[in-house]
Formats: sequence, structure tokens, C-alpha cells
Amino acid sequence: MITINEHFLKLKAGYLFPEISRRVGSFQKANPDANIIRLGIGDVVKPLAPAIVEAFHAGVDQMSQADSFKGYGPEQGYDFLINAIIENDFKSRSVDISTDEVFVSDGSKCDSGNIQEIFGLDNVIAITDPVYPVYVDTNVMAGRSGEGDEQGCYAGMVYMPCTAENNFTPALPSEPVDLIYLCYPNNPTGTVASKETLAQWVNYAKENKAIILFDAAYERFITDPSIPHSIFEIPGAKEVAIEFRSFSKTAGFTGTRCGFTVIPKEVKAYTESGEAIEVNRIWNRRHCTKFNGVSYPVQVAAAAVYSDEGKKQIDENVSYYMENASIIRTHLQELGIEIYGGENAPYVWLKTPDGRSSWDFFDQCLENAHVVGTPGAGFGPSGEGYFRLSAFGFRDNINEAMQRLKKL
Amino acid sequence: MITINEHFLKLKAGYLFPEISRRVGSFQKANPDANIIRLGIGDVVKPLAPAIVEAFHAGVDQMSQADSFKGYGPEQGYDFLINAIIENDFKSRSVDISTDEVFVSDGSKCDSGNIQEIFGLDNVIAITDPVYPVYVDTNVMAGRSGEGDEQGCYAGMVYMPCTAENNFTPALPSEPVDLIYLCYPNNPTGTVASKETLAQWVNYAKENKAIILFDAAYERFITDPSIPHSIFEIPGAKEVAIEFRSFSKTAGFTGTRCGFTVIPKEVKAYTESGEAIEVNRIWNRRHCTKFNGVSYPVQVAAAAVYSDEGKKQIDENVSYYMENASIIRTHLQELGIEIYGGENAPYVWLKTPDGRSSWDFFDQCLENAHVVGTPGAGFGPSGEGYFRLSAFGFRDNINEAMQRLKKL
Repeated sequence: MITINEHFLKLKAGYLFPEISRRVGSFQKANPDANIIRLGIGDVVKPLAPAIVEAFHAGVDQMSQADSFKGYGPEQGYDFLINAIIENDFKSRSVDISTDEVFVSDGSKCDSGNIQEIFGLDNVIAITDPVYPVYVDTNVMAGRSGEGDEQGCYAGMVYMPCTAENNFTPALPSEPVDLIYLCYPNNPTGTVASKETLAQWVNYAKENKAIILFDAAYERFITDPSIPHSIFEIPGAKEVAIEFRSFSKTAGFTGTRCGFTVIPKEVKAYTESGEAIEVNRIWNRRHCTKFNGVSYPVQVAAAAVYSDEGKKQIDENVSYYMENASIIRTHLQELGIEIYGGENAPYVWLKTPDGRSSWDFFDQCLENAHVVGTPGAGFGPSGEGYFRLSAFGFRDNINEAMQRLKKL
Repeated sequence: MITINEHFLKLKAGYLFPEISRRVGSFQKANPDANIIRLGIGDVVKPLAPAIVEAFHAGVDQMSQADSFKGYGPEQGYDFLINAIIENDFKSRSVDISTDEVFVSDGSKCDSGNIQEIFGLDNVIAITDPVYPVYVDTNVMAGRSGEGDEQGCYAGMVYMPCTAENNFTPALPSEPVDLIYLCYPNNPTGTVASKETLAQWVNYAKENKAIILFDAAYERFITDPSIPHSIFEIPGAKEVAIEFRSFSKTAGFTGTRCGFTVIPKEVKAYTESGEAIEVNRIWNRRHCTKFNGVSYPVQVAAAAVYSDEGKKQIDENVSYYMENASIIRTHLQELGIEIYGGENAPYVWLKTPDGRSSWDFFDQCLENAHVVGTPGAGFGPSGEGYFRLSAFGFRDNINEAMQRLKKL
């Protein structure tokens, strides 16, 4: 008799964003004339930059001619893209990464969801709370947790609360943990980690033979020059960290799909008998067996992110969104709402007024202001009482949303 | 201490195709002037059809304008593509599939590799032997096997030999199995399954509460009208089968990346306590949590596969490759080599002359004829003594390869 993976049945409700879609869809159906402004899911709105579009077309053209057609490519990605990544994202920050340490993929959600597969089921998972749900859910599915409670907390996982009280900087775990998910600039709180904070984590990982899974999907939005863009800027991190990067928010690739993961060869995980195994080699085996590389024209488009024109155009898009974030901050501050983030990240994290619950405030914003945000509680128990607004929107909509919230 | 998933360490050697690449690369390096003809990995050579290229460009253009830009799409794929799939691949064959039973992905290698995740680790896996290595390796990685032996056979998995002796039609398993991987038209043997054969499997699955994972990536190459293209053409199959489809070979998408999986809502798997769970719902949860949809322009390109122009152009490409297969068959027959397949599939499966081992014959072809094929033993122990030639090549190369093999 075929059995189901019962760990899936432990998952609470739907994945956050489909649940938001469901509520918005049902409201829109009941109110077809409502002009809903969506600042919930962190999805870009500006079209692909001209340099990227041009490269994308060129890639498609290559597929149309026999002598330039590309069939199966290297599962890890083409060197032209990997070299551009290394040169611009790492070498420019004095981080030394080699070509076989970069794995191009169809997005960092996939990578940050799949990475846990290559580790043992006995590892203790540490996550910041609130957190991007993918880290939690994929470990629950794999069986690295017990049952979930009403708040969506799973037994056996170590939650590290990040709230206004600790300035969104979690304490190091008091119990030993093995796999630590960190995301900076942070989704959902929009806060950042200093070099000192990251150095503490690197030291912790070295001392405890733990691995840090560092999600840097939002690094491009950092404006403060003292904040590291890559965890590999921290001495020793190459021994204990894996980094995820994405073109989704950086270059508007949410619908185009491309990201990459960096696994230095120094990173080791251990067998039960204590043998050290190169994690890079195991991920490579996984990547080659279960993945067939990213669409060639998409890789050509992604490489244009690093061209002179591409960089300039993307800087403009990033500035546009960060100006949005600044507008959101200013308006909410005027309303006397406590806010965090939005200075080095495209997310503003706010404390819901009058101590309302996150989903209450979500429904209130949707029903009365026709503005969609993301309920903090959807990111974990410590997100309760908070709410996320995304700066990914057109300026007029951001302004209009702020006016509507003022009237609320 | 972070532990590695030790099941990965059970995997024998490299994944087959990277190993072939390594040998070919090393030969090419030592013999830079050798004009190597690659009929090993089943990779298409003809460029994308004009109708597909046109649609692909149109998709990219939509990404360049704010009012037609697409960010995150539905993880399951856009309706315009799903509807075209249902209409052309299923309704046309009197198979009734609904939109929420189709999951578009970036390739059937990914889906056929990932699908096992949603089932329990206690399931017994049955595979035909020889077999596409992804089915085996992904189950080994997950822990559904013991150690492998020298021939690459893993303890605890049920191998169903397919050889000339049984006309490449495996007997139903004598011991109970839960998850059955079938691929027809078959990779690597190029053989097909009749309606009667598939009906036996469907009955077996119903009687034993098993699930069939049916890989139909090569259905487009079927020329015999009596052979089913989809397992869902068999009455009752919708209760016990999942089907994988790919645009890779059909439409030259090996470098463009798109495929899909069909999971009827009737398919159930069970909890330990015997509760029936809808597999579609669990896969949907997995798909939404670990995947973010296929690149929008790629989906537009894939939909063009079903346009009138697209169909015509793709038929021409398929005929071209099948004419290659026929040429390969004719020449090998003239050489007195025993051959199979190549009539309803783009692969010709041959018995190595003089009882040579598969890898010996591989090295002989590479070194003396500069022709790359795939050693049958790489697909499993029953593939030993066989060799696969792919019909995916330019006509001149196919003819040249045949001349060289004659001289061998």
C-alpha cells in the first residue's frame, strides 16, 4: 500500500501567500469595483530593464538558429553568468569565490527550500521568528519537526524571536543547533545585520560545527555602506556558510526566474562516524540529478544585470523602490505608527495600531482601505501584532495607499 | 554538529551523463582535432521552431512594458498553457483532465526526481531495468534503499529486468511494490507498451493500492496508432497514475526548460492508519512551497507548441529525428547488429557486438570512431551488454557516424 509522507499533514493552513490570494480574491469577487492596491506579496512591478530585455531577445534569437542553438547546458549554469556573478557580487567586495562554488538556479525559493535535503534528518533547525515560511515548511515536510501548535510553532525547531524588544537581533541559541537560517536584509522585518552580528554567528557556527544558510536575496537594497552584502565578507564564513542570492527583487525577475547559491568548498557536514564531507560535492550531486539548468535565454538576460547599462538601469529601479519605502516610512510615522525596516530593505514592518492581531489588521486594510499587506503572524508567532508593507509598487499606488491608510 | 544526509554517500559513481561528459572531455583534450559525433545524451540539435521563437519574443516583449509585465505567476502555471495542454494532449485523446490537475514545471527531470518526496519513506520502489537513472538515484538519496552493489543495484528496490529475452516487457512484480516507475516510449530501450500491457499495470496498481509514475516524455515520437500516448487512456488509470510530460524532446526545449505533471484528483495515498489522502493536494503544497513557477516567456513559448503553425513545425522536427532513427536501424541491421526501439522512440538500443561490456564498447566507439553513445550498463545491471544511440542529431552526422561504425 502506497503511503503518503505524513509530515506534510503537520503543515498548518496554506502557505502564507496563497492564503492571502484567497482572501483578496474572495474580497475582489464580492467587490468587483474595488481598486485594490497590493503591497502584500513582495512582487516587483517595474518591467525588465531595457538592457535585460535586449539580452533576453538575443538569447532567444540564438535558440532560433542551428549554429547557436543551446540544448542541455551545464546544470550549474553557464560560465558567462557565473563569471559575471563572481566578478561583480564577490570579487568587488574582496570575496574570493571560484566558479565551481556557484550554482545557478531558477530562483532562491527553490534553493532555500531544497537545500535541507542534503543534510541529515536529525539536525536541529534554528530560525529567526518571524521568518520566510519556506525555511520552516520545507523542514517540516522533510520530518525535522514534531507537530505544530495553534500559533504555527513546530515542536523540535528552535525559534529565535526578533521583536522590537530585542531590536530584531536574535540572541544566540542557548541550546545547540545545527542548521541556522538567517536572512539579511531581513524578510519580513526589513532590518539588517551588522558585521559584528554576523561575526558572532560565524563564530557560533564554527564552535558548534553548525552551518549557516544565509539568504541575501535583498542585498541590493542596502544603502548603509557599513552593512555587509554577503556573509562571506565575514572572516571564516566560507567554512560554515551557504549563501542564497536572487535576481527576483534585484532585477525584477520574479516572473523571469533566476537565482543562485554559493557553497564554498570549505563547508563541511559530518557523517555519524565523524567523517567530514564536502557539502559542495553533495549539493552538486543533488543539483545534477534533480535539476537540468536554467533556461538559456534567461541566463543571458541575467548576465545583462552585470553589464554597465544593466547596472545603471537596475540601480534606478532599486532607487525607485527605496524611495517608495521612504514615503511609506514618512507617512506611517506621521500617523504615529511604530515602524522598522525600509531603510536598507524594500519592506516596512509596522506594529499594528491598537494592539490588533495581524490578520484583523489585514482584513481591516483590505476591506476598508482596499490595501493588501502581509500579516506578521503569517511569518511566525513573534510576527503577531506586526504587519508588512512592501515597497514594490508604482509611486501613484504607494501614495494612494498611504492616503487611504490615513483615512482608516 | 551538522550531519550530512548519508544516503547520498550510497550513490555509485557520478550521475551517468556527467560521467560520459568527463570521458568525452578527456578524450577531446587529448585529441583536439577529433571530430566527435555525440549520439550519447539524448539532446536535440534542431533550433526552436519559428512559431515558438516568435511567441518567446512576444513573451519577452510583454516583460518590457509596465502594463503587460508579469511578476510572480501561479506556481502551477498559467491557464493559457494549461488549457492548451488539456485540449491538445488529453481531450483530443478522449482523456478528461481538469485545470487543477496539471502542474507546469521547468522540466520533467525535476518533477520525476521530486515526486517521491511526497510519499512515505517506507514505500517499496519498483523500476524497470535498465532505467532512467533519476528514478533510482532520487529514491536512494531519500533513503528508500540500502547499499548499492558493484553492478549499481540498491538493496530494497525491486528491479524488473527488461531484456531481449522478455521482449523488453517486464513481468508484474512477484513481491508487493508501492511506487512503480514506468517510462513509455521507453528511455533507454526505445520500446513501447501496448494498451494491454498498461492495463495490466493499472490493474496491478488498483489491486495492490500502488501508484504508477508514468513518464511519457517521448509520447510524441509514437508512430503506431495502436500505442497509447497517455496512461490515462487506460480505463481506471486516473485512480492510480501520475504522468510526466516534457517539451524537451517534443519541441526542442532541452535548453529552454518546460514540462508538466498530471495528477488526477482520484489518486490517493494512505496514512499509516489507512486514511486516504489526495495526492494532488499534497503535491500542490509541495509545488507552491518549493517552486515559483516557470519563466513567463518560456510558458508563452511552450503554448505555441500547440498553435497550428507550431504543431506543423514540430511534426516536421519529430519526423526528421525519426528518419534519423530509421537510418541508424538500417545501417546497424546491415552490420548484423541486434537492434531494438527506434520505431516509436528516438532511441535505438543495440546489443554490443562480440559480447563486449557496455563501457568497453563506449570507449571503443569514442576512441576509434569518435562516436559517443550511452553505455547500457549506465542505466542498470540489465543494460549491461547493450548500448544506446540517440537519433537526435543532424542528418550528415548520423550518416557519418554510421559510416564510421561500419569501419570499426
